[in-house]
Amino acid sequence: VRLLLINPNTSPGITDKLHGVAKAATASGTVLVSATAPRGVPYIATRTDAVIGAVVALEMLASHEGTFDAAIIGAFGDPGLGGARELFSVPIVGLAEAGMLSACMLGRTFSVITFSNALVPWYEECIAWHGLEKRCSSVRSLNEGFSTIEDVQHEKEQRLIDLANRVSSEDGADVVVVGGAPLSGLAETIKDQVNVPMVDCVVASVKLAEALVALKTRAPRAGTYRTPAEKASIGLDPILARKLANAGFEQ
Amino acid sequence: VRLLLINPNTSPGITDKLHGVAKAATASGTVLVSATAPRGVPYIATRTDAVIGAVVALEMLASHEGTFDAAIIGAFGDPGLGGARELFSVPIVGLAEAGMLSACMLGRTFSVITFSNALVPWYEECIAWHGLEKRCSSVRSLNEGFSTIEDVQHEKEQRLIDLANRVSSEDGADVVVVGGAPLSGLAETIKDQVNVPMVDCVVASVKLAEALVALKTRAPRAGTYRTPAEKASIGLDPILARKLANAGFEQ
Amino acid sequence: VRLLLINPNTSPGITDKLHGVAKAATASGTVLVSATAPRGVPYIATRTDAVIGAVVALEMLASHEGTFDAAIIGAFGDPGLGGARELFSVPIVGLAEAGMLSACMLGRTFSVITFSNALVPWYEECIAWHGLEKRCSSVRSLNEGFSTIEDVQHEKEQRLIDLANRVSSEDGADVVVVGGAPLSGLAETIKDQVNVPMVDCVVASVKLAEALVALKTRAPRAGTYRTPAEKASIGLDPILARKLANAGFEQ
Amino acid sequence: VRLLLINPNTSPGITDKLHGVAKAATASGTVLVSATAPRGVPYIATRTDAVIGAVVALEMLASHEGTFDAAIIGAFGDPGLGGARELFSVPIVGLAEAGMLSACMLGRTFSVITFSNALVPWYEECIAWHGLEKRCSSVRSLNEGFSTIEDVQHEKEQRLIDLANRVSSEDGADVVVVGGAPLSGLAETIKDQVNVPMVDCVVASVKLAEALVALKTRAPRAGTYRTPAEKASIGLDPILARKLANAGFEQ
Amino acid sequence: VRLLLINPNTSPGITDKLHGVAKAATASGTVLVSATAPRGVPYIATRTDAVIGAVVALEMLASHEGTFDAAIIGAFGDPGLGGARELFSVPIVGLAEAGMLSACMLGRTFSVITFSNALVPWYEECIAWHGLEKRCSSVRSLNEGFSTIEDVQHEKEQRLIDLANRVSSEDGADVVVVGGAPLSGLAETIKDQVNVPMVDCVVASVKLAEALVALKTRAPRAGTYRTPAEKASIGLDPILARKLANAGFEQ
Amino acid sequence: VRLLLINPNTSPGITDKLHGVAKAATASGTVLVSATAPRGVPYIATRTDAVIGAVVALEMLASHEGTFDAAIIGAFGDPGLGGARELFSVPIVGLAEAGMLSACMLGRTFSVITFSNALVPWYEECIAWHGLEKRCSSVRSLNEGFSTIEDVQHEKEQRLIDLANRVSSEDGADVVVVGGAPLSGLAETIKDQVNVPMVDCVVASVKLAEALVALKTRAPRAGTYRTPAEKASIGLDPILARKLANAGFEQ
Repeated sequence: VRLLLINPNTSPGITDKLHGVAKAATASGTVLVSATAPRGVPYIATRTDAVIGAVVALEMLASHEGTFDAAIIGAFGDPGLGGARELFSVPIVGLAEAGMLSACMLGRTFSVITFSNALVPWYEECIAWHGLEKRCSSVRSLNEGFSTIEDVQHEKEQRLIDLANRVSSEDGADVVVVGGAPLSGLAETIKDQVNVPMVDCVVASVKLAEALVALKTRAPRAGTYRTPAEKASIGLDPILARKLANAGFEQ
Repeated sequence: VRLLLINPNTSPGITDKLHGVAKAATASGTVLVSATAPRGVPYIATRTDAVIGAVVALEMLASHEGTFDAAIIGAFGDPGLGGARELFSVPIVGLAEAGMLSACMLGRTFSVITFSNALVPWYEECIAWHGLEKRCSSVRSLNEGFSTIEDVQHEKEQRLIDLANRVSSEDGADVVVVGGAPLSGLAETIKDQVNVPMVDCVVASVKLAEALVALKTRAPRAGTYRTPAEKASIGLDPILARKLANAGFEQ
Repeated sequence: VRLLLINPNTSPGITDKLHGVAKAATASGTVLVSATAPRGVPYIATRTDAVIGAVVALEMLASHEGTFDAAIIGAFGDPGLGGARELFSVPIVGLAEAGMLSACMLGRTFSVITFSNALVPWYEECIAWHGLEKRCSSVRSLNEGFSTIEDVQHEKEQRLIDLANRVSSEDGADVVVVGGAPLSGLAETIKDQVNVPMVDCVVASVKLAEALVALKTRAPRAGTYRTPAEKASIGLDPILARKLANAGFEQ
Repeated sequence: VRLLLINPNTSPGITDKLHGVAKAATASGTVLVSATAPRGVPYIATRTDAVIGAVVALEMLASHEGTFDAAIIGAFGDPGLGGARELFSVPIVGLAEAGMLSACMLGRTFSVITFSNALVPWYEECIAWHGLEKRCSSVRSLNEGFSTIEDVQHEKEQRLIDLANRVSSEDGADVVVVGGAPLSGLAETIKDQVNVPMVDCVVASVKLAEALVALKTRAPRAGTYRTPAEKASIGLDPILARKLANAGFEQ
Repeated sequence: VRLLLINPNTSPGITDKLHGVAKAATASGTVLVSATAPRGVPYIATRTDAVIGAVVALEMLASHEGTFDAAIIGAFGDPGLGGARELFSVPIVGLAEAGMLSACMLGRTFSVITFSNALVPWYEECIAWHGLEKRCSSVRSLNEGFSTIEDVQHEKEQRLIDLANRVSSEDGADVVVVGGAPLSGLAETIKDQVNVPMVDCVVASVKLAEALVALKTRAPRAGTYRTPAEKASIGLDPILARKLANAGFEQ
Repeated sequence: VRLLLINPNTSPGITDKLHGVAKAATASGTVLVSATAPRGVPYIATRTDAVIGAVVALEMLASHEGTFDAAIIGAFGDPGLGGARELFSVPIVGLAEAGMLSACMLGRTFSVITFSNALVPWYEECIAWHGLEKRCSSVRSLNEGFSTIEDVQHEKEQRLIDLANRVSSEDGADVVVVGGAPLSGLAETIKDQVNVPMVDCVVASVKLAEALVALKTRAPRAGTYRTPAEKASIGLDPILARKLANAGFEQ
């Protein structure tokens, strides 16, 4: 399995973190390639960032087309996931999606914890988009500044342990999903100090991407993810524009 | 009221249609300015198009900043509406939102009709995003080719009349919302041939934008639409990049 | 536009307050007429009051029939709104409905605040009836006595400011809808002291009534708001009885 | 148990029908008294009729106060039920409520069938008010004229049998609730010709009213059905006005 | 009416408590027989216990077949209720179901209180299974040890009174349902010290079972509770095995 | 990874089918062991069968305890899954759960198809239990007899292809989940004749079980799946009884 992990943020440090955790989770036959967004924002946090990151994710996938059997969109709110499933016929998984669906198999409800409350509205819309509101007990974040995005998980480790235990005791979470690419790997580090299972979204997304490949499904010729009709465009990234122009043939 | 109507599609013909219908609906004190997307796709239809159109909408709003008291995003699925409300402190209304909220005051349930089934998945996600699923009886479209996007409403007039009456009789719609910028003005043309009230989204969006201005609300300093922290970026449209860089000050 | 604002409460002081705020919000071509309930209760608070007020509202609308192009039911829980839409072919808007739908365009969620907890159960049923539970973060009220209904907004101003900020910080409201006719005008007075946008339901209802008139919709010949069959009655208000007797012709 | 059955319609023929079916269902110690609305409409069908009937129901209950240990509101949409529970401290049951809650114990889902499609919108709002939408598979009616309201169940017997079997086969109903006071007794008559259990709402309401008496609950001093504060009024039915004036003491 | 009350727990002391409360609630013509589980666990608390108890309940019903006109499954989470309705053609009621449906007639929302937090997850799944989540304001329990299951209601009386008042004041419950067979009879004991009506599930289940008998419904020949096809089995309780083998002929 | 696949049905032929499909899907390091129910019914179809199968599943897991790192409950409705997660600290996955969660990553909505309508009610309750109703477009089955359970997938192949295409075209399914252990392997066989992706639940469950092992989560010490308190029992399978007696010490 050739697995592509795209980081739709422009921070290479986050890509490194994602790649390291993902690499350790790959099955023996899986070859992992990671890529950092060539344009966009350093860290996707808001609805604005999310649509920017969505287009960047589509551009990145288009520029790697043909080199991967499955891909992971490496940002928690899954920017561009819907469009990616329209444009590409191989399995594509989002970080949030993978983490939350895995959590569904470990408990009745999960909470998402993250490091900045700027992320919460977008995360909540992501959960609703996935139709998982009934399984989600809460989305909670620290509410305080931090030094650097690359180092936030170490700086805030104890605070995040406390938050994880609090969503268990106060919100009734059976499982804690650690949200946000900068926190990749944290679940493993702190799990012994938290009363309920912790899900690392990167590990989950690698395994679920591999699972989808194993299902050997055919690309849809019907349904809402069938390939869209080819479409002209103006002023878009040339590779994405070329992809849109040949995207497929109308049903 | 200085009202900006942006068409996030690159088709000037659609802008003309939108402008004409909108103009006729403005109150005496309202000055309407319309603009066509300088880049993007001719007509937004899919989830992919929607995120592209969302970024284009934000770029257009940024490039007109300071010239409008309220804005309308002139595409039915409301691309970029969430981000626009984060970035701009004046009222911004989406075509779908305005049409559907107006329909809520005319009946218990509404159906959305449109001319192409390529639009349906995106429209349904838009309705869910607005939390209006309980008020929506169906989203239905013609399922057939058409000559040009500018002329589709005349070419398909009788078929759309039939569809409007069918969502009333078969799906129990109390109101029909006409979806899709290319169908602007159609509601007025065909209303006598349809058994339930028809809502034109452009008329609705002009009046609701004016309504929001009349409410004289303050920009939020809290909540999910508070101004995001300023943010650096790489490779974005320069005006949007500048807007992000100064977007505001963290809470 | 000839706009009728009926106050289904018997308190003329509330009518004055409603009329003043509404008047200031009318477009240039709108002529506003207000009326106080000739019978009923001084202030509608409970489910019991609500059905009494509903019938009174229908009586008032029937007694003014032919003199208005649109009407506003000037009590927050929208008593009689469903029946009014059956009986009358012009647009009719409720105070709660107008405020809440406007709030939907200003934030993801709104909370309703009011001055007496006697109102909360009825308000909650009203929100459910409108299908807006997913958009509503909470309904909260002061829980204490007050001197007079006409003066409650001044007496409790600071307490209501605090409550408005509390629904923002504790319940996550993006917008605050000020519920209850006696609080008309308060949103404008206190908005600078509240962290999220405030919606005045009277302003909203005037603008939304004007919007519905601008849509120039036809009366429904089908759907749940089609005109009911004519109906005999015993012992009802003579004007309402006459209206029912000629209400229309069965589908 | 002194059980009061009020018919909020002005048709004595319907009262007779209700009384007959109810009488046969009473337990040995139950004394049944029935009453016909002294004012209102012959048969409640619409939202308009429902608020009129609601007030009439409250008037009837007030005029019988002290003579009953439990009461049944004898019209399918349960007009006035919420208000009745506020004003009176004895158990009060609605016909629709009793039929639907009984159906919940006989199957996973129920459908409501009735004789006129004029009733359907009000019935659907009633079901939503009771929070039973998830248990309700459909509300369906005949769509055709009938001779008299008193005789409609015999005239349409075969058509209603067909409809009952159709909601089973087409809508997946596990149980059929027969809606509408004029159809009282029909369930027993036709049950052998219908594939799923039939619920007679009058029988159900007698037994559930007796059940509530057996629970010997205390009147609420808190919660949304606590007794409202006493309230002045103008121009209401004198007995209801007196009831409101002494209704209780604020919490 | 021959009414069978099965206790799917193996504790005879709980059967005695159930029988005493039930007996006092029976109508004059009702003959009550109770039975204790011959195998299983002393007190059903978890999902594991619930499926064990479900099978035991089916075995008990099968072993008494022909001797009862209606049955009550005497454990709060209603173990085996779905299967029982498939296998037996007489009415069968669950303790939780009866209590919660009765509560629906006494208030807008109910909370369930119980004595051990081990019960809460199962109770919540039971409420969801019944489709009553919208009517349920909370499920709350004491969180502390107790001496014996037979005596827990006396030992914890004051704590349960406090909890009942707390679900009223903190969670907005209109009614309190006392959950758990060991608490049978408690509602009557403490009702004067609680601000909202209390429902005893045993009383409710007796009256609702009698109500279902009074409805004289036919067994379903269609729907999800139609009799299953006969089925062979290995290693099951012989009486249940025989019941399955002859269960019916439908399909 | 030592992976245990239990077939809670007593049909060894189904175990063989499950094992063959599962084996082909295992990763290189996974050792698969399968087991057939020593007691129970040949094929679980109804709610009654489901609780019997649930207890049998728990017995089977208990009798293999210590020999597996993860387990699959090999029947579509996931009998005993909730209890299994309480009793065992290793990951346990249900066939339905695995298939449906995988489908969520391949489309917006999925339909479940199966070969007998006797299965539909139980399947629908399973979907609700998993909180996936919003993602499920329909559950549909053939409605006709078949020769043997082992051979049903070949006998009905063309009929199931037609049904799969029908849930796509009529119900709007983006993905088809093939429900029922006897249909294992069918997805792969027929996928080229179906317009939307097909999910084989056995393949999905193997990969998702492996994914959960890769997450290396800790067993919960809190939440609804924490280990229950130890519990005495009477007349249960001795190995399950022993497991219950020592299940844990938590609370």
